[in-house]
Amino acid sequence: MLSQTLRRLPAILAGLGLILSPIADAAVLTPMKAVDPFIGTGGEGHTFPGAVAPFGMVQLSPDTDAECVIRKCYPHAAGYRYEDPTIQGFSMTHFSGAGHSDLGDFLMMPVAGDAVPLEPGDAAKAGSGYRSRFSHSSEIASAGYYAVTLTDPGVRAEMTAGTRIGVQRYTFGRDKPAHLVFDLRTSLYNYPGKVSWSSIRLRADGTLTGGRETRGWAPGRKLFFAMRFSRPLLGHDFRNTETDVPYKGFKGPGRSGSDIAELKGRALVARLDFGRLDAPLEVKVGISTVDEDGAIANLSSEPGNFDAIRAKTESTWETALSVLDVQADAKTERTVYTALYHALMAPSVLSDADGRYRGPDDQIHKADGFTFRSTFSLWDTFRAEHPLLTIVQPPSTTSDVVRSLIASREASPYGILPVWQFQGQETWTMIGYHAVPVIADAYLKGMKGFDANKALDAMVASATYAPYGGLGDYMTLGYVPIDREPEAASKTVEYAYDDWTIARMARKMGRLDVAATFEKRAAYWRNSFDAKTGWLRARKADGSFRVPFDPTAINYGSDYTEGNAWQYSWFMPHDQGGLIKLLGGDAATVAKLDAMFDFDTSKLDYSKSEDIAGLIGQYIHGNEPSHHVAYLYAFAGAPWRTQARLKQIVDSQYNDTPQGLSGNDDIGQMSAWLVFTSLGFYPVAPGSGQYVIGRPFVDRATIKLPNGKRFTIVANGMSDANKYVGAVALNGKPLDRVYLTHDEIERGGELRFTMSATPNKSWGTNLASRPYSMSGY
Amino acid sequence: MLSQTLRRLPAILAGLGLILSPIADAAVLTPMKAVDPFIGTGGEGHTFPGAVAPFGMVQLSPDTDAECVIRKCYPHAAGYRYEDPTIQGFSMTHFSGAGHSDLGDFLMMPVAGDAVPLEPGDAAKAGSGYRSRFSHSSEIASAGYYAVTLTDPGVRAEMTAGTRIGVQRYTFGRDKPAHLVFDLRTSLYNYPGKVSWSSIRLRADGTLTGGRETRGWAPGRKLFFAMRFSRPLLGHDFRNTETDVPYKGFKGPGRSGSDIAELKGRALVARLDFGRLDAPLEVKVGISTVDEDGAIANLSSEPGNFDAIRAKTESTWETALSVLDVQADAKTERTVYTALYHALMAPSVLSDADGRYRGPDDQIHKADGFTFRSTFSLWDTFRAEHPLLTIVQPPSTTSDVVRSLIASREASPYGILPVWQFQGQETWTMIGYHAVPVIADAYLKGMKGFDANKALDAMVASATYAPYGGLGDYMTLGYVPIDREPEAASKTVEYAYDDWTIARMARKMGRLDVAATFEKRAAYWRNSFDAKTGWLRARKADGSFRVPFDPTAINYGSDYTEGNAWQYSWFMPHDQGGLIKLLGGDAATVAKLDAMFDFDTSKLDYSKSEDIAGLIGQYIHGNEPSHHVAYLYAFAGAPWRTQARLKQIVDSQYNDTPQGLSGNDDIGQMSAWLVFTSLGFYPVAPGSGQYVIGRPFVDRATIKLPNGKRFTIVANGMSDANKYVGAVALNGKPLDRVYLTHDEIERGGELRFTMSATPNKSWGTNLASRPYSMSGY
Repeated sequence: MLSQTLRRLPAILAGLGLILSPIADAAVLTPMKAVDPFIGTGGEGHTFPGAVAPFGMVQLSPDTDAECVIRKCYPHAAGYRYEDPTIQGFSMTHFSGAGHSDLGDFLMMPVAGDAVPLEPGDAAKAGSGYRSRFSHSSEIASAGYYAVTLTDPGVRAEMTAGTRIGVQRYTFGRDKPAHLVFDLRTSLYNYPGKVSWSSIRLRADGTLTGGRETRGWAPGRKLFFAMRFSRPLLGHDFRNTETDVPYKGFKGPGRSGSDIAELKGRALVARLDFGRLDAPLEVKVGISTVDEDGAIANLSSEPGNFDAIRAKTESTWETALSVLDVQADAKTERTVYTALYHALMAPSVLSDADGRYRGPDDQIHKADGFTFRSTFSLWDTFRAEHPLLTIVQPPSTTSDVVRSLIASREASPYGILPVWQFQGQETWTMIGYHAVPVIADAYLKGMKGFDANKALDAMVASATYAPYGGLGDYMTLGYVPIDREPEAASKTVEYAYDDWTIARMARKMGRLDVAATFEKRAAYWRNSFDAKTGWLRARKADGSFRVPFDPTAINYGSDYTEGNAWQYSWFMPHDQGGLIKLLGGDAATVAKLDAMFDFDTSKLDYSKSEDIAGLIGQYIHGNEPSHHVAYLYAFAGAPWRTQARLKQIVDSQYNDTPQGLSGNDDIGQMSAWLVFTSLGFYPVAPGSGQYVIGRPFVDRATIKLPNGKRFTIVANGMSDANKYVGAVALNGKPLDRVYLTHDEIERGGELRFTMSATPNKSWGTNLASRPYSMSGY
Repeated sequence: MLSQTLRRLPAILAGLGLILSPIADAAVLTPMKAVDPFIGTGGEGHTFPGAVAPFGMVQLSPDTDAECVIRKCYPHAAGYRYEDPTIQGFSMTHFSGAGHSDLGDFLMMPVAGDAVPLEPGDAAKAGSGYRSRFSHSSEIASAGYYAVTLTDPGVRAEMTAGTRIGVQRYTFGRDKPAHLVFDLRTSLYNYPGKVSWSSIRLRADGTLTGGRETRGWAPGRKLFFAMRFSRPLLGHDFRNTETDVPYKGFKGPGRSGSDIAELKGRALVARLDFGRLDAPLEVKVGISTVDEDGAIANLSSEPGNFDAIRAKTESTWETALSVLDVQADAKTERTVYTALYHALMAPSVLSDADGRYRGPDDQIHKADGFTFRSTFSLWDTFRAEHPLLTIVQPPSTTSDVVRSLIASREASPYGILPVWQFQGQETWTMIGYHAVPVIADAYLKGMKGFDANKALDAMVASATYAPYGGLGDYMTLGYVPIDREPEAASKTVEYAYDDWTIARMARKMGRLDVAATFEKRAAYWRNSFDAKTGWLRARKADGSFRVPFDPTAINYGSDYTEGNAWQYSWFMPHDQGGLIKLLGGDAATVAKLDAMFDFDTSKLDYSKSEDIAGLIGQYIHGNEPSHHVAYLYAFAGAPWRTQARLKQIVDSQYNDTPQGLSGNDDIGQMSAWLVFTSLGFYPVAPGSGQYVIGRPFVDRATIKLPNGKRFTIVANGMSDANKYVGAVALNGKPLDRVYLTHDEIERGGELRFTMSATPNKSWGTNLASRPYSMSGY
């Protein structure tokens, strides 16, 4: 409560006339009230509205459709779509903003009455199955809590989650018997044969346990559950709906599903009977990647009923979100705090309460002295999500991440760091070895809690594993050849950036041989850059650039990764100076950036490329390759152009509605971009130790740093009209450069922007003021 | 060597005229030389010729066909059929004599030359795949060793096995490159979708690991392997031959199977390249139900190369087989020692070297202070296999068995003892709760090493679990009603016998309430016996016997279990006196037994009932319900008829050829019958503490008892003509009863039969001489 009073203090002081530059239109939302989990649940965001604790293993959320087929699955990657009319059930696991579908494990749905359908039925036909209609007006979603009234059974459904548990609370009418349908068949992207095995078992103490294996995005993924009920389970029916069952005659005791104690198979569904209830039914579920014992232990590790778990999780969120004290208009407070909320979901906890977890080798490991985390969407999150965690979370979060990455490498069948891992399992999705910049950024920021030599060994191993993504050729030719490896141009430049971070870390550690090798490789981006045309282009093994060449062409599996030459020609974040020289200088660079943003794409059709969304010309904010591009003007002496472009992006790509994310949140990256940008700076090149200054979108914000210090951003006179930065002062002194260092933030202080309606075209123009570039300017 | 000299001593003495009754035709085979693993590999035996250690977890044996479909699979239940012309490969796990097919895990096959087929091909077309022709003349099989020359690749293949490992040795010609094909797709009874998941991984240290899950007889069974090679693995190719693979584009590093380090999927096969070899290639494989780490640890727990492992296992066999010192004609020595060999394969070791194992709940447990064993074919093996182990094995074998049964019960989702369990997984095959007599027999024989109260609790739990096999009705009605439960007549009588063993154990323990309850239930066999007709008949819930009734009708799922009224009307081994009274006395009983053996079955067709084999009239020795029946004459005062029938059975149902078993060995039961019968006695009612005396088929045999004492059987004057027992003396005194007690054997001594050409119809006729019967005579 104190913090709320303190938050209101500026407004109070302003009301008393005691602040010289009063903050107009400042909202007074608490961080918790500002979070709106529905943001991103429609449109392209792929977020979910359900209950989750910070970095929780469980994401307990409604699925409006878990029966989708491959193309329809893309919009249902998080299970829930705001546009859908029915809820199929509530499942325990969801991605926040993934481009691919999976999870949706252990779906539960309440059913009232004597007839209990065991199939979900048709969303268009009410009563055709266990799914139910619902109205958004009955929905509540907040950090750690979700509620909805299910029209068809007349049941109020509430969800909350702890770290490794979820709690469901169903309030049935008293007039009909209460049932739950527990469906082990459903999954997000649920093609035939996805559930390769599953089991369910009612134990003598009333605990329901089981698990399943899915051959999905992470093939062979195993997850177990343990479930307890607040009311006696009066009856049950376990069914296997698969007809092709060998040795069908050999069944466990019991003549029907209602008296068997367990069932195994590939298509299991259970009916659970509770009779007429005069109080809400609570269902508490623990999950584990290890085994049923792990799930039981996790379930027991977080005691308390629904309200207790909810209160604890809300308190945890309050603490986590309050790391930022933001003052802005209500819409901005909502978008920024919701972005922070989304950024604090992953990498999520995976190890059980006892430290055990299932690793990338599908074997059981134990995390000693740290919490094993997974859900590493590294191609996305190395950019801003992980750098954000270094300033808004305790150091243990990042050291957990780094130790988890190292442990994953040690358990990797290939001996390399994760690429896109969830629940400990590798998916081999996207390109690069972007665990490398995550670790390097942490090390270079002075973060402790992991073995740097082990880390560097893992980084080098990942960067030199020849069979991976054309690395063999990259090491010998200096680039990835397109005639031997798809998406070669993107791979070459992303490898070069990752290599630069290895070099930086190795040099700081004094491992100079490694540093020298990777400093050389950091310049390999040049080998795929066609200086004559000014484009990054895919090159063949014979040295020639591939023709025909079209910088607007976007094809999966072609020369670039989810993008084209327009976006990828900017991917040398560690050497923008080198790029600017190749492009012919600042003016040419600015002109090319402007051409990108102002490109007329009306005649192009990118609709088949699912991840290409949020277009501003060829700047595609809905996908990551563009994320740093607006900041590149600042490298070319035109930070005022960055400021204008950021205003254009923030206004068009984010809002506080379910359609508030223009692209997949990508496990926090889209959101982390907004948090940084709103604060006025962005980590263009993680590993550089610098944040490039853009412009703020909050009137005032204080970061409560993990070290106890505070760093405050103030935007004097900001308005829609005052979209430019007139002047910048750090700790009261004018700042004549367009970047901040991580150390400057860590030391605490104040970054004060004086906003202006007209651009300050002289600030940040001289070479000395520009951000880091490997080969200078 | 000493023991061989001692074995020859009688022959030597006989040659010197120093033995009054010289043993004619006595062979001098060592136990090891007498074992012929080919016995039972043709015909109906379903045994395998491969390498196994006593009770070994690994049964490394050739599979002549692992591609069979459901009906063809029955004869290939052990993978190898003597009649087959080709070998498909060598796999790590096999049942010895099961009626159902499964296992055949991790099949390996050598291939020589540049073209390496990854499919087994057609057995009828040489060279169409990796399978090869072979000739029996090139085969050698002995305890712990198997060898064959594979014609097509020109490779000598040798197999040996330790407890948890198998070692393969392949001698290639030097002219062609050597390869192995490792096929994770094959399995015994290999219907589509059987392999629900599998994985293979080449580790940096050259160890190949992986595992698979199969939805077979034991649904959801998991097994892992770890493999090391004596020569460097120069190349490999991992393939997934399934075409329906989701997220196919997301593959691990490497452009082809030859440079990927791991693969997961449902149809994996690997090619392993070793180049031209000038020495044999040894492949050492460990398996584990726990995980890959368990398999690696098991592999390392038994050090040594092929020859060392072979020598160690042969030594273990020598010790195990030498517990019997048999002198008989060569054929009998071969059949008896091979029977003992077959009887010492299961219940096989399942726990890893570190004690961990996967239990019936699919969770990992640890066996503390004992070795967890599995492969419990209890409906078969409670009869003679387990009783045999109590006199030919150290007490730890039986205490391991009992502790494994109790541990299985504790991990059972139903809280009951195993029914038909292998690799820790329940199959729910056959009827009854016959773990109960196994435990009771052990306890009543005074065996220690387990918690008797825990054991009795488990027995009572199993006998009172209402949903199991009509037990609820059995407990209320006094019998299993056929209109509610199939095979009701068989279930009623088998439950009643099992109940009697509970009562016996409970009474000895002083748990008198349990004893009283189960003594009452032990008489329930009467409730399904139609005294008017003299048949055991299925009864309906309304009390009436089901009509029409045909005592010759054998249908699966009908009133009886793999049998008919002819066999099942004798199943009250604990109360033959009660039966004899119901049948009208001794003469009527003997007449009915004779009618059974002499029945003309020429007009009946039992060919569709796979397990009905080895017919002597309605006496069906190839299946277990008949196994005690020949001994029942002795309960009716006509032991001479038992003697004649045993001669008839042994002569017709066993021999020393591949067709030497008239029915499935059933994990040692057929063999244990022969061992007991050859020694001259048989445990008709395990739990009674008695062995019913038949007649011996060996000239002399000494049992080296676990307690260090010796019990010797001598058959004076035995010949084909002298097939009757003229007199019996125990420790030099005439024995005027037709049974021995377990205590008498345990004390050591000599049982001397004087054989005769004419029956002694006065011996064993008086009531006092008859074996135990619950309700007397």
